[in-house]
Amino acid sequence: MSGNTFGTLFTVTTAGESHGPGLVAIVDGCPPGLPLALADLQHDLDRRKPGTSRHTTQRQEPDEVEILSGVFEGVTTGTPIALLIRNTDQKSKDYSAIKDLFRPAHADYTYHHKYGLRDYRGGGRSSARETSMRVAAGAIAKKFLATKGIRVRGYMSQLGPIEIPFKTWDSVEENAFFCPDPDKVPELETYMDQLRRDQDSVGARVTVVADGVPPGLGEPIFDRLDAELAYALMSVNAVKGVEIGAGFASVAQRGTEHRDELTPEGFLSNNAGGVLGGISSGQPIVAHLALKPTSSITTSGRSIDVNGQPVDVITKGRHDPCVGIRATPIAEAMMALVLMDHYLRHRAQNADVHVGTPVLGQL
Amino acid sequence: MSGNTFGTLFTVTTAGESHGPGLVAIVDGCPPGLPLALADLQHDLDRRKPGTSRHTTQRQEPDEVEILSGVFEGVTTGTPIALLIRNTDQKSKDYSAIKDLFRPAHADYTYHHKYGLRDYRGGGRSSARETSMRVAAGAIAKKFLATKGIRVRGYMSQLGPIEIPFKTWDSVEENAFFCPDPDKVPELETYMDQLRRDQDSVGARVTVVADGVPPGLGEPIFDRLDAELAYALMSVNAVKGVEIGAGFASVAQRGTEHRDELTPEGFLSNNAGGVLGGISSGQPIVAHLALKPTSSITTSGRSIDVNGQPVDVITKGRHDPCVGIRATPIAEAMMALVLMDHYLRHRAQNADVHVGTPVLGQL
Amino acid sequence: MSGNTFGTLFTVTTAGESHGPGLVAIVDGCPPGLPLALADLQHDLDRRKPGTSRHTTQRQEPDEVEILSGVFEGVTTGTPIALLIRNTDQKSKDYSAIKDLFRPAHADYTYHHKYGLRDYRGGGRSSARETSMRVAAGAIAKKFLATKGIRVRGYMSQLGPIEIPFKTWDSVEENAFFCPDPDKVPELETYMDQLRRDQDSVGARVTVVADGVPPGLGEPIFDRLDAELAYALMSVNAVKGVEIGAGFASVAQRGTEHRDELTPEGFLSNNAGGVLGGISSGQPIVAHLALKPTSSITTSGRSIDVNGQPVDVITKGRHDPCVGIRATPIAEAMMALVLMDHYLRHRAQNADVHVGTPVLGQL
Amino acid sequence: MSGNTFGTLFTVTTAGESHGPGLVAIVDGCPPGLPLALADLQHDLDRRKPGTSRHTTQRQEPDEVEILSGVFEGVTTGTPIALLIRNTDQKSKDYSAIKDLFRPAHADYTYHHKYGLRDYRGGGRSSARETSMRVAAGAIAKKFLATKGIRVRGYMSQLGPIEIPFKTWDSVEENAFFCPDPDKVPELETYMDQLRRDQDSVGARVTVVADGVPPGLGEPIFDRLDAELAYALMSVNAVKGVEIGAGFASVAQRGTEHRDELTPEGFLSNNAGGVLGGISSGQPIVAHLALKPTSSITTSGRSIDVNGQPVDVITKGRHDPCVGIRATPIAEAMMALVLMDHYLRHRAQNADVHVGTPVLGQL
Repeated sequence: MSGNTFGTLFTVTTAGESHGPGLVAIVDGCPPGLPLALADLQHDLDRRKPGTSRHTTQRQEPDEVEILSGVFEGVTTGTPIALLIRNTDQKSKDYSAIKDLFRPAHADYTYHHKYGLRDYRGGGRSSARETSMRVAAGAIAKKFLATKGIRVRGYMSQLGPIEIPFKTWDSVEENAFFCPDPDKVPELETYMDQLRRDQDSVGARVTVVADGVPPGLGEPIFDRLDAELAYALMSVNAVKGVEIGAGFASVAQRGTEHRDELTPEGFLSNNAGGVLGGISSGQPIVAHLALKPTSSITTSGRSIDVNGQPVDVITKGRHDPCVGIRATPIAEAMMALVLMDHYLRHRAQNADVHVGTPVLGQL
Repeated sequence: MSGNTFGTLFTVTTAGESHGPGLVAIVDGCPPGLPLALADLQHDLDRRKPGTSRHTTQRQEPDEVEILSGVFEGVTTGTPIALLIRNTDQKSKDYSAIKDLFRPAHADYTYHHKYGLRDYRGGGRSSARETSMRVAAGAIAKKFLATKGIRVRGYMSQLGPIEIPFKTWDSVEENAFFCPDPDKVPELETYMDQLRRDQDSVGARVTVVADGVPPGLGEPIFDRLDAELAYALMSVNAVKGVEIGAGFASVAQRGTEHRDELTPEGFLSNNAGGVLGGISSGQPIVAHLALKPTSSITTSGRSIDVNGQPVDVITKGRHDPCVGIRATPIAEAMMALVLMDHYLRHRAQNADVHVGTPVLGQL
Repeated sequence: MSGNTFGTLFTVTTAGESHGPGLVAIVDGCPPGLPLALADLQHDLDRRKPGTSRHTTQRQEPDEVEILSGVFEGVTTGTPIALLIRNTDQKSKDYSAIKDLFRPAHADYTYHHKYGLRDYRGGGRSSARETSMRVAAGAIAKKFLATKGIRVRGYMSQLGPIEIPFKTWDSVEENAFFCPDPDKVPELETYMDQLRRDQDSVGARVTVVADGVPPGLGEPIFDRLDAELAYALMSVNAVKGVEIGAGFASVAQRGTEHRDELTPEGFLSNNAGGVLGGISSGQPIVAHLALKPTSSITTSGRSIDVNGQPVDVITKGRHDPCVGIRATPIAEAMMALVLMDHYLRHRAQNADVHVGTPVLGQL
Repeated sequence: MSGNTFGTLFTVTTAGESHGPGLVAIVDGCPPGLPLALADLQHDLDRRKPGTSRHTTQRQEPDEVEILSGVFEGVTTGTPIALLIRNTDQKSKDYSAIKDLFRPAHADYTYHHKYGLRDYRGGGRSSARETSMRVAAGAIAKKFLATKGIRVRGYMSQLGPIEIPFKTWDSVEENAFFCPDPDKVPELETYMDQLRRDQDSVGARVTVVADGVPPGLGEPIFDRLDAELAYALMSVNAVKGVEIGAGFASVAQRGTEHRDELTPEGFLSNNAGGVLGGISSGQPIVAHLALKPTSSITTSGRSIDVNGQPVDVITKGRHDPCVGIRATPIAEAMMALVLMDHYLRHRAQNADVHVGTPVLGQL
């Protein structure tokens, strides 16, 4: 496959550049009969949309999606669902300042070497703008998963140096940071305001959790559920690390501490993050991702141009000072896409399996 | 695909259980004309092999591989390469103690729920024994990559609480831990001896590095090089986290700190870990993985049986107290497989690309 | 994969229903730097377009395509190319006559049983209208292949009972039938006029030929070039048979007759149709396909409704009396897609191969 | 994928050369809990095995298969099933006569140009010997399909010029030709005896039929059931044409004749061959394939050597004078693999679909 298709049975193929005519996705493999309306997609698109607070880019994109196929009389038909978002805020600005040089930490240098040319307008294909289509496709997956009792939610668990212990889901949608602790929000706002004054950017950590996942999802030995989650989450712009459950904390754990013991009433802990041997255990699936600081900052940096000559680069324009802030809906979407795909893969092979043993939850 | 095939153009399909007749792999897509001998595979198999020091399981498996196809007169022919390793140390021991219960942190519970039955002998398919085929296949990839100037190497960067800063590649093959600092080895040995007395296990962190990778490998937007590495490394038994470059440290970094500036003489740092926008930059590719502590320990733990009744479990047998110790060759193999696959994918699309800009290394 | 994606490295994913908002395709894997303009696509779309003669459906669809991504400053960028054709002639007619019954030889019955519901407007996804996207994608493949000296062309080789021996390529684009013999055209016209008066339809045979294909394309043992051509051509609406080279005539041939002997000046015959052992030989690739008569005819036929009750069906509307007439550009497109994909696959594995033996053509 | 893997969810990856150590297959995606014994595979292997009558090659290969994984306590476990057949009759004969030249109608010339080198012993990978693994894998598919009421059977429908109308399944297994009419067998034997005296070979036509296939299998628009059958059957050595249902006879049919009308009691005909719109209709699936005459004949033919010089070639050795004779089990296997794969794919997407309309059979 050519790199722009995600999934095996529930597939998402996307196309589109930051400043081209628009973004397109084809979602294939959705079961028929699923009620699906524009509003189902728009809700998550609006959560990801820039410009909703002073802490994200002020680029104004309504991100209004159109469904071009695969839905008839309000339900999916089982045929592919094509989605289109027209780009509207394509400032016809002058790109001559950056077209022949490589912005540090951007994909300019690597696209140039890979393809021999690049669409330099706003990052082209490498812009985070493409994630809107992930979010739209993920919303379809979420809608289906909900019919099976599965729910995917995320939150910001760290902003730069500020760790944010989980407190309550109720808070997450009530602030611009997807912060699960309302008492932490003022601290985050202060930090971000200072950051902007410093003309700098910062990284973040996002946590995603799926509840209600039945045991059995994941296809060892390569397409394990955790391996597919790592692939899905690492494929998001700016992500530099992925953990499942205890993640890197496992390194210093002992076996007696790490192993999640089972009792008839449920698992006693969840260091596994809901995945054992690459297969979901029935516990919540828990993943963490590390997002690097935004590369586009207005503090000058050293680089070279296409002729190999040294240059100084300042990235002007409207940029998120912390890409992690808008990453929560994207991370949710990617987890939903993985679970959706594996739900279908699992029942393909194992629809006839009957297990007497009761399913455990987590205590 | 059904979960046991890795890769797109250079594919590895494996089969085999811990205590069945043997392990099999079919490696497809290898370019023709590559000199390949048994010794090329055996070298890495021996590095992964158990029983070579007192710090790993004492299971004795010679892990002798046979090449059944795809090699003729000492070179690959371009047809699939089939590999076979017979299991020889299959103790016909009594498994009645574990066949009807679920060992904590093992895949017993999830295999049971997924498939409705399981091969309980030594973990069956979920045993780390399957990784021998990854290593054998990875050795073929390494052989090819070497003809392009690419080298993949790994080392242990943390054992339990003991961090091991990189010192020298020369040390890595000189001790049982793949430790890059000879002065650290006694500390590791002492720790492991105490661990065994504690009847416990511990996690580890392994780092893998590829040098000589040209810019351009990786297929955005989903099949990015970093995403595929995350998938590949997370698919290894016991891995709970993957980082590229600065990884989770990126969370607290500022943009001015994280971005790797470019000069005509090379990149000034490598927080990116050699991947920008999902494409290799020409810098070394750097990945870290977290391995959880071995689940099989002789300290009793709580669990349930297939009827949902509570039981106490002690996992007897010959087990590695730290699976991370033998993980280095496996991690190298997985990185080699990813690079090999992407080398072929890249030239499929971009063989005609000519770039004038000089390629930078890292200062 | 979910059925709406074609190819391995050069992939085409399509979506869209006959009477929905539009048709979409995402073409992924196109090498960068290929000059590509709307006119390149429109030429073949116009060749397939209905309503250009009295022998095809009078549905008026301008079939104007829009390129939404992947092309920048007149050349491909290596990122996915999204295509959109809006449906314009969607008569808001009354479908109540057919929505609850199954038209014989149509996909109504099978879509109903597969998906539990169907978009009954004009055949929905099963309409031949989707082939416009195959043609558009195929035009991109043709453009690339031309840069490598490969040309794909087709013609009608039989219309109902009238066999049409190949005479000259010059004639093919000069008549409504893609007929390679100008002297045959009046006979075809007379036949078609009578057919329309009979309120009936008829089948056709189409031949596709690729010249300039280098030896080596095709991936044994399953993804042979001939196997992939059979898949590609049989996937076109109404196709019931595919032959490579001598095809079914091989059954009665003897080995001494069938085998294409080689001389230093070239092959002496081409019963193989340019494929030996699943790999192109350097001779012209020749495939034939059989297309069934149009299912939509105004002569009444027996069927059942969704409740299993008997009904009589007359398919009104604007239909091609011979779908084979417009099939030539579609068949060309499918062959071009296969060759394009295999061109990339071949060089992925074998870019380093150097063969001293001269390449033969056909005498 | 690299060409040696068949299928999407039920995958078969094979390896092995004619005169190498052995043949290997990994069958992945088989549902767990299926009873499977060696005898299940050996039955079809014996039907394909050479040397069972004077009309096939006298090469003696016991074709005894070993199951290396994926089966435990007599049932499949859901993990991959590895199969091994050791080559035993590898005559260490002198290949110097053919190693540097290209036998007409063989894959010698194309393998040489594709890979730059080839295993010239007995055709290497291009030998029909690889089909034994298709047959073994197909036997697993047949076993599963039988649990769903699906049966795949084939017969020879033409030998050279002798057409063989279907008479009775009872005859098929009673003679060396898979001939469905016992009265035709003497004529076939006389023809073959003369052919051998002529030192020539001849083509054949084989028909495969699947009964009991439920409606709904097939994934439009590319992975239609008929398209996948065409791919599967054309991928078999020596096949030059594939038809579904009426096949090439459709060309001269009228719509009123071709369309299969429906009544509450069933379909009135089966020109469709059981596939409408690429999806099974519930009628028998019917496919025909054309096999070319054996390329290896002892009558001299013209060719060139690797230096491009003219040579005369006589192919000595033990060869089938009509490869079509042993093709029936192979064709059955390929149809079974397609149906198996699509059975799983269909239920992945559509397991929740409930259709009230009764399923029709064929009258």
